[in-house]
Amino acid sequence: MSISVAIAGVTGYAGAELLRLLVAHPAYASGELTIGALAAGSSAGQQLGELLPHLPEFGDRVVVETSAETLGGHDVVFLALPHGHSAALAHELDAEVSIIDCAADFRLRSAAEWEKYYGSPHAGSWVYGLPEMPGHRDAISQTGRVAVPGCFPTGATMALMPAVHAGLIQPNINVVSITGVSGAGKKASVGMLGAETMSNVRAYNTAGKHRHTPEIKQNLGEFIAADIQLSFTPVLAPMPRGILTTATAPLAAGVDAVQARATYEDFYADETFVTVLPEGYQPQTKSVVGSNGVQVQVEVNEDAGLLLVTSAIDNLTKGTAGGAVQCMNLMHGFPETAGLPVAGLAP
Amino acid sequence: MSISVAIAGVTGYAGAELLRLLVAHPAYASGELTIGALAAGSSAGQQLGELLPHLPEFGDRVVVETSAETLGGHDVVFLALPHGHSAALAHELDAEVSIIDCAADFRLRSAAEWEKYYGSPHAGSWVYGLPEMPGHRDAISQTGRVAVPGCFPTGATMALMPAVHAGLIQPNINVVSITGVSGAGKKASVGMLGAETMSNVRAYNTAGKHRHTPEIKQNLGEFIAADIQLSFTPVLAPMPRGILTTATAPLAAGVDAVQARATYEDFYADETFVTVLPEGYQPQTKSVVGSNGVQVQVEVNEDAGLLLVTSAIDNLTKGTAGGAVQCMNLMHGFPETAGLPVAGLAP
Amino acid sequence: MSISVAIAGVTGYAGAELLRLLVAHPAYASGELTIGALAAGSSAGQQLGELLPHLPEFGDRVVVETSAETLGGHDVVFLALPHGHSAALAHELDAEVSIIDCAADFRLRSAAEWEKYYGSPHAGSWVYGLPEMPGHRDAISQTGRVAVPGCFPTGATMALMPAVHAGLIQPNINVVSITGVSGAGKKASVGMLGAETMSNVRAYNTAGKHRHTPEIKQNLGEFIAADIQLSFTPVLAPMPRGILTTATAPLAAGVDAVQARATYEDFYADETFVTVLPEGYQPQTKSVVGSNGVQVQVEVNEDAGLLLVTSAIDNLTKGTAGGAVQCMNLMHGFPETAGLPVAGLAP
Amino acid sequence: MSISVAIAGVTGYAGAELLRLLVAHPAYASGELTIGALAAGSSAGQQLGELLPHLPEFGDRVVVETSAETLGGHDVVFLALPHGHSAALAHELDAEVSIIDCAADFRLRSAAEWEKYYGSPHAGSWVYGLPEMPGHRDAISQTGRVAVPGCFPTGATMALMPAVHAGLIQPNINVVSITGVSGAGKKASVGMLGAETMSNVRAYNTAGKHRHTPEIKQNLGEFIAADIQLSFTPVLAPMPRGILTTATAPLAAGVDAVQARATYEDFYADETFVTVLPEGYQPQTKSVVGSNGVQVQVEVNEDAGLLLVTSAIDNLTKGTAGGAVQCMNLMHGFPETAGLPVAGLAP
Repeated sequence: MSISVAIAGVTGYAGAELLRLLVAHPAYASGELTIGALAAGSSAGQQLGELLPHLPEFGDRVVVETSAETLGGHDVVFLALPHGHSAALAHELDAEVSIIDCAADFRLRSAAEWEKYYGSPHAGSWVYGLPEMPGHRDAISQTGRVAVPGCFPTGATMALMPAVHAGLIQPNINVVSITGVSGAGKKASVGMLGAETMSNVRAYNTAGKHRHTPEIKQNLGEFIAADIQLSFTPVLAPMPRGILTTATAPLAAGVDAVQARATYEDFYADETFVTVLPEGYQPQTKSVVGSNGVQVQVEVNEDAGLLLVTSAIDNLTKGTAGGAVQCMNLMHGFPETAGLPVAGLAP
Repeated sequence: MSISVAIAGVTGYAGAELLRLLVAHPAYASGELTIGALAAGSSAGQQLGELLPHLPEFGDRVVVETSAETLGGHDVVFLALPHGHSAALAHELDAEVSIIDCAADFRLRSAAEWEKYYGSPHAGSWVYGLPEMPGHRDAISQTGRVAVPGCFPTGATMALMPAVHAGLIQPNINVVSITGVSGAGKKASVGMLGAETMSNVRAYNTAGKHRHTPEIKQNLGEFIAADIQLSFTPVLAPMPRGILTTATAPLAAGVDAVQARATYEDFYADETFVTVLPEGYQPQTKSVVGSNGVQVQVEVNEDAGLLLVTSAIDNLTKGTAGGAVQCMNLMHGFPETAGLPVAGLAP
Repeated sequence: MSISVAIAGVTGYAGAELLRLLVAHPAYASGELTIGALAAGSSAGQQLGELLPHLPEFGDRVVVETSAETLGGHDVVFLALPHGHSAALAHELDAEVSIIDCAADFRLRSAAEWEKYYGSPHAGSWVYGLPEMPGHRDAISQTGRVAVPGCFPTGATMALMPAVHAGLIQPNINVVSITGVSGAGKKASVGMLGAETMSNVRAYNTAGKHRHTPEIKQNLGEFIAADIQLSFTPVLAPMPRGILTTATAPLAAGVDAVQARATYEDFYADETFVTVLPEGYQPQTKSVVGSNGVQVQVEVNEDAGLLLVTSAIDNLTKGTAGGAVQCMNLMHGFPETAGLPVAGLAP
Repeated sequence: MSISVAIAGVTGYAGAELLRLLVAHPAYASGELTIGALAAGSSAGQQLGELLPHLPEFGDRVVVETSAETLGGHDVVFLALPHGHSAALAHELDAEVSIIDCAADFRLRSAAEWEKYYGSPHAGSWVYGLPEMPGHRDAISQTGRVAVPGCFPTGATMALMPAVHAGLIQPNINVVSITGVSGAGKKASVGMLGAETMSNVRAYNTAGKHRHTPEIKQNLGEFIAADIQLSFTPVLAPMPRGILTTATAPLAAGVDAVQARATYEDFYADETFVTVLPEGYQPQTKSVVGSNGVQVQVEVNEDAGLLLVTSAIDNLTKGTAGGAVQCMNLMHGFPETAGLPVAGLAP
């Protein structure tokens, strides 16, 4: 038996990363997974070789229109479209098609937060596809509709979840996340030119304006009743891929470094993709580039009375396409880690 | 009348940047400033052209030994040596020689903090050479001994000083500073190789371990009686130069965005090197590369109840050698801004 | 007496670099040079601070329309416009206005070559503004119309001119020039995004297609009667600025390394901006970033019977705006090197 | 049945890349290949997690000494040691152990060339492990001793071999190869620091001095009786991985673009790892990063009478470790492409 998979938005960075991962999936090699429609917008009709030269195996494939006609009839449809396009498409696809949405459309449960941050009507919410969150692995396995987490929320949630879950910190959280430039997507703009972004670091969408703010709060809110105060500062750094998250919060009474480390090691003991680094070592984005891995370090700053957690992910892999394939594996009975490297591409 | 200047440690990044700035100083062009001994350690005897090919005007100069003999007899001696080497040299130089120390040796007033962070006996403290700090400009003008601030403390102090001075925030401060790789100096190490640092971001000396932590606290402590709680997280980014500082702290009661912005604009109204950016614009390191400029943005995050300040400097210019030349200008009667560009090298 | 200067296209990379250099020009400090109209196209009406944050001294200046009205009445007009726009403007300006054109419009003397490579009617040719070319310094000093060389032709001509002039090589020349991404200009495109250009090297406009090919041949043709066979391969590298040129050609009979080196050292003996590096040292772009310097190395490859010359320039400084200011200095009686650093911004 | 594999020099860039590839090899997943001794020099005794954090699956493995004792008893030994260390080790290992040497020791057949370029006694030569060279695939399949090609020779040979083989060009060849910084290896040096190599391009080992010069000549010499004149200019570019090769040579009489393209397409028609790009597209290193792919473009420059070929490889994958695994596959009966991605990691 074989499942067929389609990708909408294959020419964008998330869509192309999905294709890169699926080509290396053992089920593709064995014939249990076939790659069907590769759809996009303005480039429909072009050969993929002109658009994604890093994927020569698909060089002769012609990009098709993104529509219910081209996507329907597959077992799995990955949506890698700009925010706001998934809902309409999703409603036109049959219920038995698994839909894995890499956009934000179905991530937020609160219609008010959605409207505040995205300025459009709320489309609803699907199972939130971060298997490492308690309860989510099972929910993903049993649904046909998954909202893949945003890249920053993946990094921040993986960093902070064990601490919030175990009550190590007070919910007064400061997150600075430093991302590579592919996070801005593959659309022409002066501000994202190489000449503007190389040798340059700058913050953006600061002081609560970034749309991933409510998503991080929603995730951490699953583990605590109290309101979460969150400062989220995204920073753009001169590298193609990767997110380094630094997070601090006041320690709960009596928490020490030994307990913090033990909490993290226990929380992630069974997670193949997560490495809690030994004491004295900091995560680096290069360690996880191209991989589905997450590297985490947890420390106590005694002078400041804070917990410091740092995490590294690849924004396009674990932060988007890798997380999406991980969900597909769970939804369709493949080993959860199939086709997803833990090894990063260093140097 | 002319002053003569010597540089100890000219082959390192800070020393070479001093020379780059002095060559472009109008007093050098006019003959009011002559460049005397250019000293270094292991490269003494070599021609500068082999060591600093970006400074061809000095290509034929021979590097001399670093000693009281070679440095004595100048009006100004810049020390750009590894930490711990300045004190012995300084004691051998005549009192009438102006000494401007780019190392940490004379920055901290607390012997206890010095010994905790540097692990060696305290050499004492000199006038702290950040002219933008209230009172410091005058003190620098009247002394012959200046300790140039560290690069991170420069960025963090410029970002936070107006807020602490005006009581906009509670002294519970979170600083994440993202630096280019030249901050690590010009010594061979595997961890700082291009192959290790390109396309990579990582934190280091986290959780209170970085030596600039007490220096930032000392600076901000000049404006507030209460103890300062500081979390300082330095992060290494793949660019040669620049520091972006992001700083948050809880707002004092009743402070709003209008007041915050006005406070910063007033505080820096007369400072040539400081630009408080218009609302909606974030500092970027590229705007200040090679310049003595500081760019600052201040915002209120209402949801989180925090002030967010960001600043950008060049770690080698305003953060070290430019700040040092600014002090020399004050100490020797040149216009404070002489030889110090405000324009950055972009793109 | 003071001259007034206008810049058309100030918001592009060449125009902004002109402004960066003029602000640091000693004649600007002394009042002998005033900076008048700063003109651009679609951004007319905006404040410069929003567009060129690295130049805060001009942050309050409002960009004006590019027209004969706004530019007329100045003593010097720099044109930093896309190719094809200079001719019409130039014809509307008075004869006594010095015009220094950074575009290609007036560089080629051959109408046929112009039409072949640019596909539009030939506008004529002006004095070619590379002062280091024999005879050009005088011609520039005596004209009111200068065509600033292209960035690649500057690098290649500086590398090859002494060899062709002295007959060291046969005119069968292979040039590979590796450029930073600012050479592509400041217009939005997917191919020049940071995510596409970082960590990436690729050739473009290969096999004779690049428009700088006839310009390089024209320049070298001033020194030799025979036809020049030129292979020019431009390559894009992941850095903001800089061009490294590597050039090879078969040695003329009897030429050896000693003669080659002596030829280069003699040819450039009086040129402030040119450094012929000592044996064993190769030019690097970082040595000349932000400067008007040119670094050159010449070697003989005996096994292959070739001369190898390498040169490094900054494409925006010596390769465009610095060269333009150098011409202005000659045209208006300033010292040729005024306002033009020889020191590069390293590291 | 299962084969066991050891890696000597696992902590260097080539050795770590071997491990990264082997972990993803399907024979490792199926148990047909086991990863035995992981050996290195000064880091013996350390855990791999401290040294190669991008490979967390092997984090607990302890690095062993590099010796005949630790390496003996495996079916395959990969040597990824500095040049000059392979011969002694190889002589101590049993004849039935397959040895795949990533160093230069056994690449050159000419003792004179070896001694000229490496300055030490010639150790002999093994089968040269570039399966795409006619005859080599079979030879590799039948030997137990393979010399893996150098990274530059791989790029240059893949670019030029079809042209030399088919007589498209005269053997007067100009190669400029632009490499990422990992090519210099993982040893501390000031010149390879991030601060020295970022935003910088420079040539090195120019004018025939680079040790890969005789290797390129040896490879191309398999297809032509005449002497080859080769100019090889390596250039260092600011990226971690990748080599872009540009090669030109005078066209043989009567050769045109159609014939050139057909020759390349035919020559590589059956090679999975090689993509001859469509007309109008240039190879870029990003397309092959982390992959075993080779991208090639061939063009005729009619004005200059030259053939221009460009190729892109990853220096650590196809250029070293990927090529080595490809040889292992051939030697041990695995599918030649097993474990070797053709897809590159872009963006």
